[in-house]
Amino acid sequence: MAQTYTIAILGGTGQEGGGLALRWAKAGHRVILGSRDGAKAAAAAMEMKATLGAGDVSGTSNKDAATAADIVVLTVPFAAQRSTVEEVRDALNGKILIDATVPLVPPKVARVQLPSDGSAVAAIQKTLGESVRVVSAFQNVSAHHLKDLSHEVDCDVLVCGDDPAARETVVGLAADIGLRGVHAGPIVNSAAAEALTSILIAMNMRYKVPGTGIRITGLPAEQPR
Amino acid sequence: MAQTYTIAILGGTGQEGGGLALRWAKAGHRVILGSRDGAKAAAAAMEMKATLGAGDVSGTSNKDAATAADIVVLTVPFAAQRSTVEEVRDALNGKILIDATVPLVPPKVARVQLPSDGSAVAAIQKTLGESVRVVSAFQNVSAHHLKDLSHEVDCDVLVCGDDPAARETVVGLAADIGLRGVHAGPIVNSAAAEALTSILIAMNMRYKVPGTGIRITGLPAEQPR
Repeated sequence: MAQTYTIAILGGTGQEGGGLALRWAKAGHRVILGSRDGAKAAAAAMEMKATLGAGDVSGTSNKDAATAADIVVLTVPFAAQRSTVEEVRDALNGKILIDATVPLVPPKVARVQLPSDGSAVAAIQKTLGESVRVVSAFQNVSAHHLKDLSHEVDCDVLVCGDDPAARETVVGLAADIGLRGVHAGPIVNSAAAEALTSILIAMNMRYKVPGTGIRITGLPAEQPR
Repeated sequence: MAQTYTIAILGGTGQEGGGLALRWAKAGHRVILGSRDGAKAAAAAMEMKATLGAGDVSGTSNKDAATAADIVVLTVPFAAQRSTVEEVRDALNGKILIDATVPLVPPKVARVQLPSDGSAVAAIQKTLGESVRVVSAFQNVSAHHLKDLSHEVDCDVLVCGDDPAARETVVGLAADIGLRGVHAGPIVNSAAAEALTSILIAMNMRYKVPGTGIRITGLPAEQPR
């Protein structure tokens, strides 16, 4: 591992956030689960430590988690995305915010229903301005597979962001949990990754499988980083 | 091959259309290249027959090609999509229209710039109404690889459409040229495939490769069709 970070996972008691937290903690990062309910996050952290048998995992409020972290990861439902960002905004200055938000609109989650601007994550970058480097990633990685530590996750990570160095950090964080991150262009390109998730859900339903994913073909075998 | 079709490829003198035409002709389908310039299409067809050494390929105007075909494929640039559809509209009734349009906005083709409704192809389905079954497909398949008959194309085809039977026909047409088509939901889901193309272009530039593509992971080994 290139570097050890303190990673706050807002929405860390959910499926996707919990899966990422589990794997980053296993890889040796310091993980702080954030939740609207700090006690719930603390309990989830205890459970995660028991599962792992080791690892530096704690749980607290979203705000405290974001404040203590080097890197903040957003894995809350779309409906809570903006309010969560507003809540922790003061703690984000100068940090990388990895936003895994998918703009699913229940109940039709297998149907692409993008926001009017195209990308839910690009909208957050616009709101936060240049003092926070927002990177879009992990939208297509199945929580089902992330949580099962007995196998590797067969999925690439589309990494979009306006700051190439921040993207590169996220590519490295993906590699730390065995995932190949791929530079996928500016933050507006996140629209593709977000929309793709509804297609993956449609495929899960059609083909009766728990978690489809994607692989990028045609890249150099050893990816230049 | 399940069935032999007469396939009109509007924009068949272009890179993507030409690549699909070449492979369908090789597979034994009757292919008619369409172009605004019928003479240019006829010349391209002669050249294609010479390349193949066999095959039923002809070329004519877009309108005549669409009229003679069982299935019409649209591979014109985004700027010509709507006018081409309007031109051949009367010939489309009751047919499947496979629309491979990607809403690229030059010069920033590596940047996702989706139409306000999200999907360029869904907008065509809306225009044409229910008498034409529009299926979105082939947006992510590299023309570079399609035109090189010496190797298989390492890319899946996201197939979106409101009519499952029409989608299934397109899954079959993809299989005829060695590509795996995957049911990806209703026509609005085409937004994801369209946006993804800009990401693939961004990757081609970043990693200096001629044609990235995608594979869907986690599907059953033998896909139910």
